[in-house]
Amino acid sequence: MESNTVLRVAGTSSPRKLAGAIAHGLRKHNEIEMVACGAAAMNQATKGIAVARQYLEPDGYDLVSQPAFTILDPEAAEHRTAIRFWLTLADCAGPVKRLRRVERTPLLGDCRPLGGEDGT
Amino acid sequence: MESNTVLRVAGTSSPRKLAGAIAHGLRKHNEIEMVACGAAAMNQATKGIAVARQYLEPDGYDLVSQPAFTILDPEAAEHRTAIRFWLTLADCAGPVKRLRRVERTPLLGDCRPLGGEDGT
Repeated sequence: MESNTVLRVAGTSSPRKLAGAIAHGLRKHNEIEMVACGAAAMNQATKGIAVARQYLEPDGYDLVSQPAFTILDPEAAEHRTAIRFWLTLADCAGPVKRLRRVERTPLLGDCRPLGGEDGT
Repeated sequence: MESNTVLRVAGTSSPRKLAGAIAHGLRKHNEIEMVACGAAAMNQATKGIAVARQYLEPDGYDLVSQPAFTILDPEAAEHRTAIRFWLTLADCAGPVKRLRRVERTPLLGDCRPLGGEDGT
């Protein structure tokens, strides 16, 4: 996957603009990644996915989301954990052709939690 | 779907407990719904889904998530919008058998936004 298909979501990201980028990316690449760190960004990311489904629906498409933990900047002394969403285009008339397997991601207890919460 | 398969997520919900409930529900029913309202709840819900994927993986299963907007208590004078996650069990060895179509949900502009944000 090309690196330009990774969408980075901030707490101030617009769900509608995000949805446009998701729908465009999925139409072009069939799958894209999206990374969000913190509760506000997670909120915008989830709303963006919900709106993107509405954008794709008139064309007979849908999408599925598979979130997983990821570490931002693994080289840094202190690891920051984020959520990486694997988004895959789905044809409404048929099953999803291919799914990404669960990545070997660190468990919650091994990471610095998201959004300043304790992750428990 | 039985009503007892709807998980309601709060901002204080534990991702690990949520993940246990998701994995159990999916093993039993193949699909479940989860409702979250607000940024903190969305954060916990997303982390719960990510952990549930780790719980299901040793058994050769995965899940896919499809978020959509929903209105809590449509009878109330003032509508509160939430996100409803449709979670579907997926067999890692094959495609997802069945997907839920996009529901006819209100667009962002028609709803009271989530988490006190303006939804844009």
